[in-house]
Amino acid sequence: MSQHTTSNLRLACVMVGLPGRGKTYISQKVCRYLQWLGIHTKVFNVGNYRRKLFGAKQDHLFFDPSNTSGLHQRKESANAAIADMIRWFNQEDGIVAIYDATNSTKQRRRHILEVLSKENIQVLFIESFCEDEAIIMDNIKQVKLSSPDYVNMNPEVAASDFISRINHYKLQYETIQEQDLTYIKMINAGSQVIINMIRGYLESRIVYYLMNLHTQPRKIYMSRHGESMFNLQGKIGGDSELSPRGLLYAKKLPELIKTHLGDKQLVVWTSTLKRTIQTSQGLNYPKLSRKALDELDAGVCDGMTYEEIEEKYPEDYACRDDDKFNYRYRGGESYRDVVLRLEPVIMDLERQRDILIIGHQAILRCIYAYFMNYKHEDLPYIKIPLHTVIELSPKAYGCEEKRYKVDIDAVDTHRPKPVKSKLSKQAQQEMKSGASGQKINNSPILPISPQFMA
Amino acid sequence: MSQHTTSNLRLACVMVGLPGRGKTYISQKVCRYLQWLGIHTKVFNVGNYRRKLFGAKQDHLFFDPSNTSGLHQRKESANAAIADMIRWFNQEDGIVAIYDATNSTKQRRRHILEVLSKENIQVLFIESFCEDEAIIMDNIKQVKLSSPDYVNMNPEVAASDFISRINHYKLQYETIQEQDLTYIKMINAGSQVIINMIRGYLESRIVYYLMNLHTQPRKIYMSRHGESMFNLQGKIGGDSELSPRGLLYAKKLPELIKTHLGDKQLVVWTSTLKRTIQTSQGLNYPKLSRKALDELDAGVCDGMTYEEIEEKYPEDYACRDDDKFNYRYRGGESYRDVVLRLEPVIMDLERQRDILIIGHQAILRCIYAYFMNYKHEDLPYIKIPLHTVIELSPKAYGCEEKRYKVDIDAVDTHRPKPVKSKLSKQAQQEMKSGASGQKINNSPILPISPQFMA
Repeated sequence: MSQHTTSNLRLACVMVGLPGRGKTYISQKVCRYLQWLGIHTKVFNVGNYRRKLFGAKQDHLFFDPSNTSGLHQRKESANAAIADMIRWFNQEDGIVAIYDATNSTKQRRRHILEVLSKENIQVLFIESFCEDEAIIMDNIKQVKLSSPDYVNMNPEVAASDFISRINHYKLQYETIQEQDLTYIKMINAGSQVIINMIRGYLESRIVYYLMNLHTQPRKIYMSRHGESMFNLQGKIGGDSELSPRGLLYAKKLPELIKTHLGDKQLVVWTSTLKRTIQTSQGLNYPKLSRKALDELDAGVCDGMTYEEIEEKYPEDYACRDDDKFNYRYRGGESYRDVVLRLEPVIMDLERQRDILIIGHQAILRCIYAYFMNYKHEDLPYIKIPLHTVIELSPKAYGCEEKRYKVDIDAVDTHRPKPVKSKLSKQAQQEMKSGASGQKINNSPILPISPQFMA
Repeated sequence: MSQHTTSNLRLACVMVGLPGRGKTYISQKVCRYLQWLGIHTKVFNVGNYRRKLFGAKQDHLFFDPSNTSGLHQRKESANAAIADMIRWFNQEDGIVAIYDATNSTKQRRRHILEVLSKENIQVLFIESFCEDEAIIMDNIKQVKLSSPDYVNMNPEVAASDFISRINHYKLQYETIQEQDLTYIKMINAGSQVIINMIRGYLESRIVYYLMNLHTQPRKIYMSRHGESMFNLQGKIGGDSELSPRGLLYAKKLPELIKTHLGDKQLVVWTSTLKRTIQTSQGLNYPKLSRKALDELDAGVCDGMTYEEIEEKYPEDYACRDDDKFNYRYRGGESYRDVVLRLEPVIMDLERQRDILIIGHQAILRCIYAYFMNYKHEDLPYIKIPLHTVIELSPKAYGCEEKRYKVDIDAVDTHRPKPVKSKLSKQAQQEMKSGASGQKINNSPILPISPQFMA
């Protein structure tokens, strides 16, 4: 029997744009998104190679095209990054590399395309083009002045140096127009987007993801439902009502949100299960129940306690402890399945402004992991306690987090990662080869269509 | 408790492009896609209004801009279509209208925008721009010569008349460039795409959908798994193996596919359940198992026979018969849920060339309904028998269908639509108001985000 096709796709996203156009922000976002989906992805930032090879804190004169030594050293940095990227594809089975540099001339882009094509790596150029001075100054202030190039420098001196650096690049900058290249050009932070020769599935997903990003400040609030009757009984899954303490939490929630949000607009998403809808009852905002936010389906174990599962399905229980992200309940789901089901939710979430998600433990772990960049193996152990609101504020290079605990007791449903596997070596082997009852699916989560590959 | 927000979004997709650029094809595809998702959508084709008002079979001189009577009549047709569209929004709660006409000048587009904005209707312009003569001639031959304007006409005379008609429009055609309009411009059948000022969620979905379309000829094969042990026992759901007859079907399948496909490449998708994977065993093509293709989840009824369900949950059983599309099994899914889960699959399916989907009854009904334009109320009764391959060939305005029955007996799992509801009037009322156990969710399937609405 022929197996799932393994992808032999290798894609390099090559950034294009003047300094201060958000290239690094875009690189990081795309990287986190793809990693969350289980696609092996890495950013290669030429600035980091330059700082490593030639020291930090070069002033703008280093970037003057008439400075031949600077030019030479920048070229060397760029080539070191490319060489390392190719090594990564070949030796570490890379799938998507993001090459973060200005790549500001036709000649440079043609050169990169040739070098990578020879290695059987597809190239998607991503240009961020911006002539809106307000957006650029905003980006410089918010991001660049905290970059490693300007640590501990007077902000005004830094800003002025950075603007001089931009001007050096502007002299030779050529916006992307090459008809035969695969590219996406985002103009003025996405108010216009041009897409050329996009063919593959993965390329198309990245493009759609980029189209959904915005950089307006906002807050993402997350809360589990209030304590449920099943929580009290130690049972998993089901569709039970809130416990008396859970109802108290639901009563307190509107005030807590109001305190931190003020009078701003908010959207509330819940699952379709009673306990999240009940928890949202007092919130006077537009609400949406989404089936995709329903809790991880425990299949035949739905409604059992962990003790019952351990007794009735001891091997399964051990398998789950051994690889919780990939373990799929009999007739139910794995965390990996849940990530796939949440992908359209994440896409939609990126479009939102202030939002409150009232969800479930496994669901919020997956969403939290996306924003906070957790690895798959750690994801199922993220602490999302009951009666606690988590507030995430997306910033240029990550998220700030605050947690607000409401003073109403609730059971603790967190099960820490077991120190040692209870599985026999043989069972582990069987599980990994897919021989046991619970299939382990280690293929990348995105269904990459074979015929669209190189 | 505040309810789900009901959408007050009204969107008009206004087509732009010379004759023969695939505007009607795009209109129909977008309309079918949105209707399938449960969004009330209608196409308003100005050509149809013209033929109704002024008779069919006008020759190209009618479209000559110096023909004042023709000009007047065309304007009248266009205005009749707009008036009807606005009436539809206001009186029939329309959500998305597609206005299918050339709209070839800036002035015309500005006028439409003003008229629709006054009615609180958002406007998304969709331009198909093509200068590739080969693509245009192909479209004319394949599509236009069978249009109502040219029925029973000598093809060469028709083609020459149509080219003259295009030339009349060309004289005054202005491609869309207005910076303040929301638009997508597809150049040369999508090889380049320009997107301007796309803001809303629904707009973004339509744009992404358009980006995924291609017009290469291809075939979509669908088959249910071979007969399973559960089929034999009359049980629903589960994860059983194939019956001996089901295994025979799996053995015959490769030959059948080969006969109709020839030596062409094929991709095979299965669900993650044993019976579809077993059915795919003899097929020597790249395969992908997708969780999103798993059978409709029957929740607490999983593994029961219909008789057992009727005995154990008589009210549920009656509810399902009463509104099978919206009925959600306790702890499981409705057909509506399945459509939502399949949406990313459809998006991906549009990108594919020749493909075989080995699926399940409910899943294939939903996919079939998308291509064949079935209404939601009829969708759960589509006949997808066991041991039969369905071949769909997408054409310009719909799909051609062939069915290949394999000569191996199998049980019949189709349950026809009951003639009369067994539900009491009161139960029907309760069900519709959501008072009974089984929630009926009549909100549109796409989660439209309130704050992105006008």
